Amino acid sequence: MPAPSTTPPARITVLSGGVGGARFLQGLLHLVAGGDTEVTVVANTADDIWLHGLKVCPDLDTVMYTLGGGIDTERGWGRTDETWRAKEELEAYGVEPTWFGLGDRDLATHLVRTQMLEAGFPLSAVTEALCARWQPGVRLLPMSDDRVETHVVVDDPDEPSGRRAIHFQEYWVRLHAEVPARAVVPVGIDQSSAGPGVVAAITGADLVVLPPSNPVVSVGTILGVPGVRDAVRSTTAPVVGLSPVVAGSHVRGMAAQLLTAVGVEVSAAAVAEHYGARSAGGVLDGWLVDTADADDVARVEAAGIGCRAVPLMMTDLDATAAMATAALDLAAAVRR
Amino acid sequence: MPAPSTTPPARITVLSGGVGGARFLQGLLHLVAGGDTEVTVVANTADDIWLHGLKVCPDLDTVMYTLGGGIDTERGWGRTDETWRAKEELEAYGVEPTWFGLGDRDLATHLVRTQMLEAGFPLSAVTEALCARWQPGVRLLPMSDDRVETHVVVDDPDEPSGRRAIHFQEYWVRLHAEVPARAVVPVGIDQSSAGPGVVAAITGADLVVLPPSNPVVSVGTILGVPGVRDAVRSTTAPVVGLSPVVAGSHVRGMAAQLLTAVGVEVSAAAVAEHYGARSAGGVLDGWLVDTADADDVARVEAAGIGCRAVPLMMTDLDATAAMATAALDLAAAVRR
Repeated sequence: MPAPSTTPPARITVLSGGVGGARFLQGLLHLVAGGDTEVTVVANTADDIWLHGLKVCPDLDTVMYTLGGGIDTERGWGRTDETWRAKEELEAYGVEPTWFGLGDRDLATHLVRTQMLEAGFPLSAVTEALCARWQPGVRLLPMSDDRVETHVVVDDPDEPSGRRAIHFQEYWVRLHAEVPARAVVPVGIDQSSAGPGVVAAITGADLVVLPPSNPVVSVGTILGVPGVRDAVRSTTAPVVGLSPVVAGSHVRGMAAQLLTAVGVEVSAAAVAEHYGARSAGGVLDGWLVDTADADDVARVEAAGIGCRAVPLMMTDLDATAAMATAALDLAAAVRR
Repeated sequence: MPAPSTTPPARITVLSGGVGGARFLQGLLHLVAGGDTEVTVVANTADDIWLHGLKVCPDLDTVMYTLGGGIDTERGWGRTDETWRAKEELEAYGVEPTWFGLGDRDLATHLVRTQMLEAGFPLSAVTEALCARWQPGVRLLPMSDDRVETHVVVDDPDEPSGRRAIHFQEYWVRLHAEVPARAVVPVGIDQSSAGPGVVAAITGADLVVLPPSNPVVSVGTILGVPGVRDAVRSTTAPVVGLSPVVAGSHVRGMAAQLLTAVGVEVSAAAVAEHYGARSAGGVLDGWLVDTADADDVARVEAAGIGCRAVPLMMTDLDATAAMATAALDLAAAVRR
């Protein structure tokens, strides 16, 4: 793993979705381990869903479990060594939905969270309490304590309008993102406020990173919370991102479908243009594309965003830490 | 198994607690199987407890699982083939209480129930919905849709009063009923109403049975719901009970401790006197004691209650069905 050419910044803030963001964070933490760097993660909460009366926060939990050593590394989500007894029983009762699997070990997290929420604690306080067990090595902040839910508009000939809005999880987990997404609607976002510490974590950072998370429903939604985009635009820290799109396709998840839904070409350069250069009212100073997309570098730079092509496949911890190194190096370069 | 000397009554209503009541019901259902008898169970709900944000109804579930074939027959409560992954995780989070074990399969029942309650359905409707899966072969009615909770007063030198009231489940599950119970308080009972169908199931019955359930916290609490004791006193059906106390001790549970707490001698005859003869303002027409307590028969009859001594150990289904037969025979005798 190449060491960064400079000492890592003291305060790094990462705007993260689930699996991709969590994996990137593993590499970043590996890189800064033993130093004085404090990493803050602002996590997307618009994938959250109430299931069987429980509040489920997939992105928060994926980050928490991944960094806390509790993740099922094979699946990338949920608990390691998981069983599904309660899920089988819920199915035996015939209660919907059956397409979202809450594992038996995972259930405890949702029970603790739901009970705390119902006792009046905000999600941020609940997350802090859960992290007291998991010790993820980062400060994990929900983007908002308010309920925001991404809905995806899909075709439905049974509806008078011919379309229907479904929860993001239904689009992703039940439909496997295999039908066209016609629109993405972050319900409630305009009425939401950034969670405690979120804006300060961005404005007070020495580096802001957009990891290779979904630019529409993960990072895009975080940026959509009132005050967050402005904080990213105005922070004195450099802002660098890593492309989740490699060679015209997402590495994981369903970025391609959702980029298409919002009218963005599925390419590393187009995602950078979608985020936009901070110098032109956007959120990026720097952008890493995969070596497969080296041809995109000139186009990204033409948009006013510093760009380098480096390997962006998070195949193992070293490869991922090397990506973090590249992000730090690019940040140092664009800062000048 | 001896057949009852008469055709079983068409409508039998049983006021039941958990394990003992459920096991008796198995015998009763075995006895009346194939006939036209409809069995209604009015179950105690004052043992109910909110745990980890979930509404847990031990007696309802014990009856439902036992008669529906889902019970762990070894333990007498909870689901067969149970695992405890969620419980272990809740402990890892350090959340209290840790002394009540919610199994992974069992959790589904509590999730379905809690979500329905929170959607506004009364416990009676929730119970009916759960029974749609379990098909217990009885009409299972919670004694009340209102929250009633049995608390037990125990000594506590740390309290200014020297005493403390704890939930019944804490007394039973955490303390194993190993400390003296100073009082039993069914919190909320005076403000509660009998559940839908409860009073009618008693007044409209052809036979009312008090199974060998706890006379203080199971049957006693059901009788304490406003309107229920009056219904039992006024029904035209004979009312017969089976002693949970054999040879001066309870067969299962903690009846001895709780009888002592309410000033009742721990004997089969004393429990009958505690219930009282209907002819003297009580609730019993007949009372079955174990053959070990044959000496109690005269004392019970002196209290105006028809009494017979028969084997009352529910060692297997035949023995239990024989107890039900004896109850039906006694009912026919006291009716005359």
